[in-house]
Amino acid sequence: MDRSLLDDSRLETLLAAAGIALTPAAVRALAAGAAAAPPGIEEDGWMVLLAPAPAIDAADGLRDALRALYRQAKAAEPAVASDAAARLAALRDHLAGRRLDGFVVPRADAYPGEYLPGAAERLAWLTGFTGSAGAAVILKEKAAVFVDGRYTLQVRKQVDGGLYEYRHLTDEPPAEWIAHHLRAGGRLGFDPWLHSAAQAATLRRACEKAGAELTAVADNPIDAIWADRPPMPLSPMVAHPLTVAGEPSEAKRRRMAEAMVRDGAASAFIAASESIAWLLNVRGGDVPFTPLTLAFAVLHEDATVDLYVDGRKVPAETRRHLGDGVRLREPAALASDLDRLGRDGRAVRLDRDNVPAWVWHRLERAGASLREGDDPCLLAKACKNAAELAGMRAAHRRDGAAMVRFLAWLDGAMAKGGVRESSAAARLETLRRAAGGYRGPSFETISGAGPNGAIVHYRGTAESDRELTPGTLYLIDSGGQYEDGTTDVTRTVAVGGPTAEMRRHFTLVLKGHIALATAVFPQGTSGSQLDVLARRPLWDDGLDYDHGTGHGVGSCLGVHEGPGRIAKRAGTVPLEGGMVLSDEPGYYREGAYGIRIENLLAVEARPGLGDGGRPFLGFEVLTLAPLDRGLVDVSQLTDGERRWVDAYHARVRAEIAPLLDPPAQAWLAAATRPLP
Amino acid sequence: MDRSLLDDSRLETLLAAAGIALTPAAVRALAAGAAAAPPGIEEDGWMVLLAPAPAIDAADGLRDALRALYRQAKAAEPAVASDAAARLAALRDHLAGRRLDGFVVPRADAYPGEYLPGAAERLAWLTGFTGSAGAAVILKEKAAVFVDGRYTLQVRKQVDGGLYEYRHLTDEPPAEWIAHHLRAGGRLGFDPWLHSAAQAATLRRACEKAGAELTAVADNPIDAIWADRPPMPLSPMVAHPLTVAGEPSEAKRRRMAEAMVRDGAASAFIAASESIAWLLNVRGGDVPFTPLTLAFAVLHEDATVDLYVDGRKVPAETRRHLGDGVRLREPAALASDLDRLGRDGRAVRLDRDNVPAWVWHRLERAGASLREGDDPCLLAKACKNAAELAGMRAAHRRDGAAMVRFLAWLDGAMAKGGVRESSAAARLETLRRAAGGYRGPSFETISGAGPNGAIVHYRGTAESDRELTPGTLYLIDSGGQYEDGTTDVTRTVAVGGPTAEMRRHFTLVLKGHIALATAVFPQGTSGSQLDVLARRPLWDDGLDYDHGTGHGVGSCLGVHEGPGRIAKRAGTVPLEGGMVLSDEPGYYREGAYGIRIENLLAVEARPGLGDGGRPFLGFEVLTLAPLDRGLVDVSQLTDGERRWVDAYHARVRAEIAPLLDPPAQAWLAAATRPLP
Repeated sequence: MDRSLLDDSRLETLLAAAGIALTPAAVRALAAGAAAAPPGIEEDGWMVLLAPAPAIDAADGLRDALRALYRQAKAAEPAVASDAAARLAALRDHLAGRRLDGFVVPRADAYPGEYLPGAAERLAWLTGFTGSAGAAVILKEKAAVFVDGRYTLQVRKQVDGGLYEYRHLTDEPPAEWIAHHLRAGGRLGFDPWLHSAAQAATLRRACEKAGAELTAVADNPIDAIWADRPPMPLSPMVAHPLTVAGEPSEAKRRRMAEAMVRDGAASAFIAASESIAWLLNVRGGDVPFTPLTLAFAVLHEDATVDLYVDGRKVPAETRRHLGDGVRLREPAALASDLDRLGRDGRAVRLDRDNVPAWVWHRLERAGASLREGDDPCLLAKACKNAAELAGMRAAHRRDGAAMVRFLAWLDGAMAKGGVRESSAAARLETLRRAAGGYRGPSFETISGAGPNGAIVHYRGTAESDRELTPGTLYLIDSGGQYEDGTTDVTRTVAVGGPTAEMRRHFTLVLKGHIALATAVFPQGTSGSQLDVLARRPLWDDGLDYDHGTGHGVGSCLGVHEGPGRIAKRAGTVPLEGGMVLSDEPGYYREGAYGIRIENLLAVEARPGLGDGGRPFLGFEVLTLAPLDRGLVDVSQLTDGERRWVDAYHARVRAEIAPLLDPPAQAWLAAATRPLP
Repeated sequence: MDRSLLDDSRLETLLAAAGIALTPAAVRALAAGAAAAPPGIEEDGWMVLLAPAPAIDAADGLRDALRALYRQAKAAEPAVASDAAARLAALRDHLAGRRLDGFVVPRADAYPGEYLPGAAERLAWLTGFTGSAGAAVILKEKAAVFVDGRYTLQVRKQVDGGLYEYRHLTDEPPAEWIAHHLRAGGRLGFDPWLHSAAQAATLRRACEKAGAELTAVADNPIDAIWADRPPMPLSPMVAHPLTVAGEPSEAKRRRMAEAMVRDGAASAFIAASESIAWLLNVRGGDVPFTPLTLAFAVLHEDATVDLYVDGRKVPAETRRHLGDGVRLREPAALASDLDRLGRDGRAVRLDRDNVPAWVWHRLERAGASLREGDDPCLLAKACKNAAELAGMRAAHRRDGAAMVRFLAWLDGAMAKGGVRESSAAARLETLRRAAGGYRGPSFETISGAGPNGAIVHYRGTAESDRELTPGTLYLIDSGGQYEDGTTDVTRTVAVGGPTAEMRRHFTLVLKGHIALATAVFPQGTSGSQLDVLARRPLWDDGLDYDHGTGHGVGSCLGVHEGPGRIAKRAGTVPLEGGMVLSDEPGYYREGAYGIRIENLLAVEARPGLGDGGRPFLGFEVLTLAPLDRGLVDVSQLTDGERRWVDAYHARVRAEIAPLLDPPAQAWLAAATRPLP
């Protein structure tokens, strides 16, 4: 790298030439923040944080200099290190200096959501554990790491059992361990930004049981000893076009404010960044996979919003889009703003399970009247409007074309041999990038060959990367974020000729998949009630799968969203028109193969049904990609199931063929011909 | 009636001659109490309350005298009267005298359970409303009666709208009405025996909202003005034989005590009389339909029980059966006993939703450490042991024979005409009485012809009693209590030739019934998860039914018992081996006909199924009675469904034919021949 590109005085000159009134230090911070966010599809997308593209290009050499800064910051990203003993010792020293007997380290950041920025990966930094859920508790003499059933093997590889006891996150939760091991009279620290109000209450009860005290710390002790902690991500907040969103933010804000006022609150604290993205019709890129900007918001009864976000993330164009009804506030202003809400004695709605304990307690102490209630955006966001559904359909056509191109390629490549899990996944990603409006994957692709396919939450590594060899099954579960929608699709294909057992199991999974996809049900039915439809064919054979059947999917937002869900676990949220959910039964033969068939479904009204006006609902299938006909044992299907497969394949062909070139069209025609 | 039979001095002489050391007054009280209980199958069964049968017969004329006393008491039973205005005025006068601004009148007694003794029918006495659920709240200027959706028509007929506002019991519950209408500073009375601790807490919050006070009354104000209130029922508590119960009471008590101690309690208060009947292997006859004795019990860690019951109900033989581990205590001793538990600082387990508020508060004030928890007998009672299941099977064979005789008779009688709902129900009752071990109906028979069949909770009256006329459907839902088991069966039969629509709907209900009966499922599955199986065929046609699919059934106990349930409502109690549940989907065409098909199922292990050791469960069908083949549209059935019907009918024929005379056998053979 040309080091001169990074020279401060040269940068200053270039910025001045471009008319950008930022110091080199500020620009370095922007580049570091941009590097802390996942890379976007457009390499230079982050530069809008400085100025619009024409301004960047006004100064010859500025773009190159900025690229160099970004790459330097990216290269400086710390790897998860191996000196866990030293880190633990340093933390204990630091705690002792603050007169703390222990500290809780959850895998969490202040912004509730599925994905965390690197700056919040304190658990990984401290212990080495990189799973998606977990916690550690550090006491003076003991420490424990808590993970769930998915990670019992991984934690033993990543975390030193000499430093940490291994505990089950839900069966032997941190609170119980604390109640048992914390010394009477001790002080346990916790970071009130990283625990919900409900979680903090659980910790407090655990400490009381131990005769000890729970203390909220003002600064996270890990941050004090984590020298190369990355900055918080800075990615541009951009407008989500009305053509796709389908409802202006002002209308959404008014609708949510009215609901909130009806429930007796004058303001609502919105902790979920996905809700804020939906409410304000904005998107971002602060975390992997879900296109959102980390932020907090307070919605008021006059339908205005105070938006707490690092102002550097909000370009002028986005500010214009947000309009007068949205006041941009720096996160540092939150404390005094909450105090004012409290002083005014306002009734503030918030969700005890979702809002940081810090916010809850600040409002409480300030005198606000707390009204517990769900995030008002959750249900509204889940029920997609006509424009969002049109966008989902369009995104699924383009995604389906990429899937067909992939499956056609795979068919040939498998015959030749040498395809690996990683190369197959990379090929699909390349094909999706060629689809219009692609913003990146909607989650980390699961590409599992043979026995790896039987690991439900398989994440490929260089060591685990298997070749697709004849006589096995290959499972690929992937999805894309598109400007107009979000996809999530799983297909299982036979490598070479499948065994009769593989076909039997695939067909059982298919029968369950069809049973759910074709269900019609009265309004008021929850996903929990429907779950068994997808399982019954497997159950009849004494088989089952250990995961939910369906999750909600956002519109160019989280690929896992509430409140709807199709699962064994009892749930009472009724499915409503416009909700998008996955239908993904599976079967996993440990050490041999995994089978999963996943389409996304949109809940739709079925006005033709219903006895005496009782409204019925059903599903529209969104996903368009052929199933492996060779894995279907037609003798196990009813006439109705066979008709469903043929009709689905005919639809896939009709909708996707026009997007393909002739060779792929020919492959698709063969792949979607009627079952024998 | 020969009045001399009732003469005190004559009675005294007879008692002396029989060697029975009771005063005439005591005997009158026994007769009155016996008359307050529902009549048993044996007319003179109550006399064991005085002495064993040989002693009664030792004095010539004593039996006749006792019968006369019983009949006199029975004749004196008050009818629900019509002077509701006078009663309401009297109550308000009385409340004013006690400085109460209002009073709550639930339909409840102190003993949680489905059926109430007449003495507890305060709501009916006061308001005229005789439904099975409801409440009234009486304030100085206003009063309201609260009923659920089943009773919105009935309450308007029975209760004067000029005296009481009509309110919905769950949508606009009493607590809300109280919070709105009770004056600030007012005092609302409630009887702490008639509300659970949880319900009392709800009332208290309602009063606080109104700025008023909730006051527990020592004596129920209704009782003070209800001149001819019947006494509490006195029916003999009898031993439930070990051959049927399958586990000695001592073993049950030890098992329950161990579970209770594991959960950290030293004693458990058991409020449900059904639990006590199960725990002590006793039965009784205090209320209709469920053969139990109203009582309370406290189980201690040493597996002994304090049983609070009117000692007059417990004959010497039953005392011997109960043994040393069960201490009989008069109900009046409960207060001081609870106080002692409190003084000893014992940890007492009880269920806030189930235990009378009086008990909860007494223990709390006495210093006991209250441990909230389910009644420990609930789940154990639901999981029938091998002897109970054998008894259930035997009872179902005898009940099935009665059903076949009934259906055979009905077939002929319908052809002749003149059969009414009431006469058909009476015929079935007569046939059940002829079955061995019959103790009476397990609930009030629903006998609904034509449009009456479409009323889910139909209770026939003289006015509603319809004839079974050709071109209609007839639905009969009934069951029996037998010494060895409890039955509950619904059959729907065509009167004359059914329409194609009737057959279509019947067959949809049948498909749902079969889908549930044939379900196999992994351990841990709740009934809520299975509910949709019974509904799906109807849903596919846009139809549904507004009731649960299945309820738990006791063993010679309540025909509705928890904790298992098959229903839309989210429930998390897993089905376990030995649970008995009904499978009763239906379809109701208002104003035209009702269809319901109900069998009882026992949950059983399916050791042949299960992938890698995951245990599976399935159902054994207990009920043995043919379905109306003429209502089955074979073209709607799958091969599997058709095989199920034929196999079920073959089994009914094989098990029931040996119990029948040749003409009935011939009818059964025709009724159970394979589907065309």
